[in-house]
Amino acid sequence: MFEIDRNSKVLLVDQIRTAIIARIEAFQWVQGSRLPSVRALARQLGVSIFTVSSAYEDLVAQRVIESRPGAGYYILPTDPAGTKHLEKMVPPSSLHAGFLYRALDPSQYDTPVSSGYLPPSWLADAVPASVTGRLIRSTLSCSVPAPAAGSQELRSVIAKKLRELQINASSSQIVVSIGATHAFSLIRNVMLEPGDYLLVEDPSYLLLQLKLIKDRDFNIITVPRTVDGPDLEAMEAMVKEFRPKLFLTQTLVHNPTGGNTSPAKGFRILSLAQKYDFHIVEDDIFGALCARQTLRLSSLDEWNRTFYLSGFSKVLSPALRLGYVVAPPAFVERLVEQKMYNVLCGSSLDETIVAYTLESGRYQHHLDALRQRVMQERTRAREWLGKLGVEFDEGAAEGLFLWARFPAQVDLRRLIEQAHDARIFLAPGSLFSNTRDYDQYLRLNVSHCNDPRFRQFLDAHLCSETASA
Amino acid sequence: MFEIDRNSKVLLVDQIRTAIIARIEAFQWVQGSRLPSVRALARQLGVSIFTVSSAYEDLVAQRVIESRPGAGYYILPTDPAGTKHLEKMVPPSSLHAGFLYRALDPSQYDTPVSSGYLPPSWLADAVPASVTGRLIRSTLSCSVPAPAAGSQELRSVIAKKLRELQINASSSQIVVSIGATHAFSLIRNVMLEPGDYLLVEDPSYLLLQLKLIKDRDFNIITVPRTVDGPDLEAMEAMVKEFRPKLFLTQTLVHNPTGGNTSPAKGFRILSLAQKYDFHIVEDDIFGALCARQTLRLSSLDEWNRTFYLSGFSKVLSPALRLGYVVAPPAFVERLVEQKMYNVLCGSSLDETIVAYTLESGRYQHHLDALRQRVMQERTRAREWLGKLGVEFDEGAAEGLFLWARFPAQVDLRRLIEQAHDARIFLAPGSLFSNTRDYDQYLRLNVSHCNDPRFRQFLDAHLCSETASA
Repeated sequence: MFEIDRNSKVLLVDQIRTAIIARIEAFQWVQGSRLPSVRALARQLGVSIFTVSSAYEDLVAQRVIESRPGAGYYILPTDPAGTKHLEKMVPPSSLHAGFLYRALDPSQYDTPVSSGYLPPSWLADAVPASVTGRLIRSTLSCSVPAPAAGSQELRSVIAKKLRELQINASSSQIVVSIGATHAFSLIRNVMLEPGDYLLVEDPSYLLLQLKLIKDRDFNIITVPRTVDGPDLEAMEAMVKEFRPKLFLTQTLVHNPTGGNTSPAKGFRILSLAQKYDFHIVEDDIFGALCARQTLRLSSLDEWNRTFYLSGFSKVLSPALRLGYVVAPPAFVERLVEQKMYNVLCGSSLDETIVAYTLESGRYQHHLDALRQRVMQERTRAREWLGKLGVEFDEGAAEGLFLWARFPAQVDLRRLIEQAHDARIFLAPGSLFSNTRDYDQYLRLNVSHCNDPRFRQFLDAHLCSETASA
Repeated sequence: MFEIDRNSKVLLVDQIRTAIIARIEAFQWVQGSRLPSVRALARQLGVSIFTVSSAYEDLVAQRVIESRPGAGYYILPTDPAGTKHLEKMVPPSSLHAGFLYRALDPSQYDTPVSSGYLPPSWLADAVPASVTGRLIRSTLSCSVPAPAAGSQELRSVIAKKLRELQINASSSQIVVSIGATHAFSLIRNVMLEPGDYLLVEDPSYLLLQLKLIKDRDFNIITVPRTVDGPDLEAMEAMVKEFRPKLFLTQTLVHNPTGGNTSPAKGFRILSLAQKYDFHIVEDDIFGALCARQTLRLSSLDEWNRTFYLSGFSKVLSPALRLGYVVAPPAFVERLVEQKMYNVLCGSSLDETIVAYTLESGRYQHHLDALRQRVMQERTRAREWLGKLGVEFDEGAAEGLFLWARFPAQVDLRRLIEQAHDARIFLAPGSLFSNTRDYDQYLRLNVSHCNDPRFRQFLDAHLCSETASA
């Protein structure tokens, strides 16, 4: 029949249902076949009758099987409207939404070389296991919603951690959000009116995500991102012409290029903001992985024109959704209003776990260890990729991402498709840009790209490409 | 000095900081005073030096105190710009946002008579304590983000629970959200263009929240809500004239009126939707507390024109933020896209806890017990309030809320202010309506309103009102 895994996080009832659907999809069980009786399957799998009958009931509701009273369960014909296999959620059809959707679904790939996350094993001890059991029980039985701005405990400890980065903020300026994406979504709603201009870097991850937005919301304009920050001449020309309300940037370990904005450029960006009257959103979700430079725009500006945003999915656990904004004081109240209207408030549970984790002494050790490990893997990856003719900008020396330029003779589109078939996830440079300048680039995550499966794949395919060229 | 509570959920460092601010605000410690040394205070409170110095450092960053090297810590003068006490987040100034903000902050009131939540003690056992410890550890160490639509486990078990309510949905139609508010925010973004009309009931909670929205988003029009559903004549006139895209309604145990839409009215609402081509959003967050009627619009319509939304903050724990939409299949993909752009994905932790809790056998018992308890408290509250001359609609016999009409001679505004001073939270009817028709109403939560403190307060104040009238 099929096997079930008692150690899996997947409920038994779902394992059974998924296994049955898989058999039907593989034509091992065909329309009109009778399923094993509930009792027989339960005995065979060593599970309760209730579990099997729940799985069957689910399949009946999904119109995959039907119950014929007194006779058992039978496989239904495939619904012509396609509702039958709707069970498995289909990735959105648009290129960008589809990419993000797949990037979030670990079941789609064995080797997520272009993922934005660290491997689970790197984060296994990030949240102290000894603490959570007690915390969860007291938090849940306390049964009060989180304050709209986030808990005072969490905001205080975030303010404390920020001071270690030379960012001086009061906890009252901090609004906790459902991750960094949500933080930017709140800022956008407060700061941009329809028709306003938003300036973003090209290439950038943010551009990828912004492509999801309908045009009606605001206009997006771009400035080229070079390895030490935005191209300032181009930037001044843009802000002069379009007078954007916001400039969105990653100062440190920029995604995808890996570069840091130099302090001198940082100062000039703030001067431009003053001269042309725009605000800055500094996205620092990867900043904790930056070992060398610590100067952020927020340190220089001290809440005159800069919003700072970050989150904990990258360095603590993607299973938590928790980010925050530090805002100039005048905008805090409106951010809280936006949050209440959008999600009312956050999860006390997630807020409590993060607050305790940040307070725990091991957090700093965890970050130090991550940084070191990222650096090691980065060096290793550059070495072997370099031998295959892949090129990198010398100035991008830190962080999670390699912005990898492949030799001109490599058909990257084909390579990405072949990788997909081998269950390897690769993100093309074109996703991060509005230009064609990065069609020969891939964004690679150094914590995944030394996986032997990717190395073998690339060895095999780049050699054959070169041979056939 | 002051006391600290080791059993409190509040971090020691925050307890110390709050106690110091309280002393300064009460003028017990004045500008220029020297604080106890870190070592002395640590010894006195029996906490670590690290804890006290963290609290002091926080206060330095907040500019409440300053560190004079070699001399100790001193209290700073109050900052004229008011930044000093910004620490305590101020509720937003607009009436509606301020109300929601305070409703979420349990520290503001002792007796939350108009709260939207159940008392913590009623939910203490809702999430099985024996399960969570293990679950949290495996979920966090698994370290993968939740799928954009929500985990398959959770969506399957929600689909199963919905079938018990005679709502037949495939798990693929379910999009998990950050609570029910977020669910509606996603639907709104998918369904409404600027300039479109949204029809809501008056009175309703939704109206309260919608008042937060800027006008630019869409236009809000209202239909009077009577005890057995919307006034259908008025509704047809409105939809004929304005052609709204969406109608937002609570079929069962309507908030704040407490009534249910009759099945006959439900059928006629769906007929209107067909005739005038609009969609319906059925908000069912309180439906689980409804003991008698089970017919929802979603059961009748089966995903032709109806979005169903609900959540778990009310019946499981407000410390979790988890809701969902069941959408007509054609809109699922766009809802997932909206969610990815807004928050990327949800919290795996919260999703896992809810999925396991719903699967557990005790969930149904928990709901049954809640329903019974709500009913008992409702009966008790109506009895004593009735004796004070407070009136209720006979048709509203179920659910968490009493829509209480106070005698004409009671100055409700004054009563609410006096209650506020007594740390009793009362929500005026005017918050739930665009008309002046409910100025003499309060929304009362039956699970809080038999609190002796409220009873004494009302006894005292209504008698004096009557005497002075």
